[in-house]
Amino acid sequence: MFTVSVRDHFMIAHSFEGQVFGPAQKLHGATYVVDAEFRRAELDPDGIVVDIGRATEALSAVLAALNFRNLDDEPAFKGRNTTTEFLASVIHERIATKIAAGELGSHAHGLASLRVTLHESHVAWAAYEGKLGR
Amino acid sequence: MFTVSVRDHFMIAHSFEGQVFGPAQKLHGATYVVDAEFRRAELDPDGIVVDIGRATEALSAVLAALNFRNLDDEPAFKGRNTTTEFLASVIHERIATKIAAGELGSHAHGLASLRVTLHESHVAWAAYEGKLGR
Amino acid sequence: MFTVSVRDHFMIAHSFEGQVFGPAQKLHGATYVVDAEFRRAELDPDGIVVDIGRATEALSAVLAALNFRNLDDEPAFKGRNTTTEFLASVIHERIATKIAAGELGSHAHGLASLRVTLHESHVAWAAYEGKLGR
Amino acid sequence: MFTVSVRDHFMIAHSFEGQVFGPAQKLHGATYVVDAEFRRAELDPDGIVVDIGRATEALSAVLAALNFRNLDDEPAFKGRNTTTEFLASVIHERIATKIAAGELGSHAHGLASLRVTLHESHVAWAAYEGKLGR
Amino acid sequence: MFTVSVRDHFMIAHSFEGQVFGPAQKLHGATYVVDAEFRRAELDPDGIVVDIGRATEALSAVLAALNFRNLDDEPAFKGRNTTTEFLASVIHERIATKIAAGELGSHAHGLASLRVTLHESHVAWAAYEGKLGR
Amino acid sequence: MFTVSVRDHFMIAHSFEGQVFGPAQKLHGATYVVDAEFRRAELDPDGIVVDIGRATEALSAVLAALNFRNLDDEPAFKGRNTTTEFLASVIHERIATKIAAGELGSHAHGLASLRVTLHESHVAWAAYEGKLGR
Repeated sequence: MFTVSVRDHFMIAHSFEGQVFGPAQKLHGATYVVDAEFRRAELDPDGIVVDIGRATEALSAVLAALNFRNLDDEPAFKGRNTTTEFLASVIHERIATKIAAGELGSHAHGLASLRVTLHESHVAWAAYEGKLGR
Repeated sequence: MFTVSVRDHFMIAHSFEGQVFGPAQKLHGATYVVDAEFRRAELDPDGIVVDIGRATEALSAVLAALNFRNLDDEPAFKGRNTTTEFLASVIHERIATKIAAGELGSHAHGLASLRVTLHESHVAWAAYEGKLGR
Repeated sequence: MFTVSVRDHFMIAHSFEGQVFGPAQKLHGATYVVDAEFRRAELDPDGIVVDIGRATEALSAVLAALNFRNLDDEPAFKGRNTTTEFLASVIHERIATKIAAGELGSHAHGLASLRVTLHESHVAWAAYEGKLGR
Repeated sequence: MFTVSVRDHFMIAHSFEGQVFGPAQKLHGATYVVDAEFRRAELDPDGIVVDIGRATEALSAVLAALNFRNLDDEPAFKGRNTTTEFLASVIHERIATKIAAGELGSHAHGLASLRVTLHESHVAWAAYEGKLGR
Repeated sequence: MFTVSVRDHFMIAHSFEGQVFGPAQKLHGATYVVDAEFRRAELDPDGIVVDIGRATEALSAVLAALNFRNLDDEPAFKGRNTTTEFLASVIHERIATKIAAGELGSHAHGLASLRVTLHESHVAWAAYEGKLGR
Repeated sequence: MFTVSVRDHFMIAHSFEGQVFGPAQKLHGATYVVDAEFRRAELDPDGIVVDIGRATEALSAVLAALNFRNLDDEPAFKGRNTTTEFLASVIHERIATKIAAGELGSHAHGLASLRVTLHESHVAWAAYEGKLGR
């Protein structure tokens, strides 16, 4: 299996509902440093996993739609706790949509899976990985 | 698959038996920076992989029982080389026991597997991963 | 010159006033990974720069008073932009106050200066350094 | 599953052919920081995944054969784009050959798989993983 | 003293002349991860060291003029070894020129000094720092 | 000012005397990842701060004399607590001696100062810096 990974970040405010979250029930915020790992069984005709320029742009575009926001105000997350692991799955889904729409190039349809990792500090991070494809 | 990871560390002395260990047969020591990665297929009812506060405490408690020790004197490791990879499996087993005992909350029974990584320097690390569950 | 550094983090929400801040004028947030570097010319009678346990506790206590907050609501920062560099100076001042109050031990009066660095992402950080002492 | 990882690096010049590579079609270069992760189901009779000294030497020897070169001039890569993901597979194959030849010790025949990761910057990396064995 | 730092990178080919460089006399290459640390005694009227957006753009523009090049072919470096420490001073000078030209905003004239660090691998880096200003 | 830095590591056992050290009074150990930063005002005739190959060897040789030891048994440290900050000064002195003896080349006599940093974990490190030369 081959992989290519790119890194970017975004900065948001949010709060959580539920006793399990303790002091994080108050409005606070986070920087998320995000790694997107693209995977496939064999290299494409250009000898690559994915066009790294387009992969970087796709990640950047997905994060731009979240960056500098209060996630408590986002209709898309109504009634959901925007935990690190949940946000990883949201970003996974949005990049997968771009791949399906051809935004990462036609060869990107050969990508097998994607892992999205969000680092929230030097001592905590979360990830979601799932298959890609038609 | 969803994951949540937390990081902590411990500092020990030990020595190894066997020619393969070269100069590490002498009493020396190490700082181990430890990552515990908790995994499950779906988020729990709180929208999380695991209560990160309890996961951090569990890791910290397991490492406290090893920290500031000479592992050569520990009855639990009698006759064993406390290599980095072996210690990863020990920490895995001890966290798994805490999960089974309910110390990470009742939803933690839904955790599928755990990966424990020990970084021994900027150029070497080892890990053990295995399933969790009843 | 000798130094000892310890690291911790905090997570906050805030917004900025002023065109120079662009999209950061909206309510957003950040994780700040904080390094406190304590400096002195000569080691103290125990052969150390500072009691690292107390230094870690002091940093942790200062960050706990900021953690999981919306800094826009904090009276202490009324009318101020809580930029990364400004927050570095605030944390510097609060640790310096603890040192002056003897909370880091009597030998800590021999500390010459302190540098506080706040990492806001993998590509941006800010610091404040200044003298300590009577 | 147990793993042991070691890190080293090499520095090369190269260029790429194909529009997808944009400005990287010009002669440029890279530092690759390389992680080799060795995996096996159970520890060997010495209680280890692999002799870390020999693993480090094997990685170092493989990288020495690439270091300080212009890869465009290497016969082994004639007609191939030496992308990060392709180089990861090359290094995988060369370490696998050393394992098969017994250079990592006789117990190394029990290794199940190998993952080779090449970090090309703080925001991009690529990997190849594949099975080992007879 | 206050500082703000930003990070970016560039990838080049080059070779060195002189026996002291050993195998690096051959054409090879490097990724340089570059940190630019901007320093001033007091914050500017916006409560910042420098407009971080403009600082990031300035660093990016300076690196773009070096990125994806063979430095042996650059007229600017004719007869010079483009060592890591020398390149740090070149980037320092080019950012200083942009500050003097007002590209980082009018308040940037209050910057006191600049440190430019180039990381060439996980085990080696070099820096140049010097005063700024009229 | 120009700097060049190189990194290596060593692994030791030791214990401390004095109530201030708490549980670290027991025999334990540490991995120290060591950075040696060489500084000078102007580049030498080869356009470098120091021969990085020789600097790396000098650091490696100094650390080899400490590696895989119980520092409590070392005559050189009799009656001293081998704290991180103290060890930084020891390594500084030993590298300085090598520079004075010409082991880093004749141009190394132009080095102005040296900073030695020991990272003992992901959340703690210490350094010693001092002048070099006649």
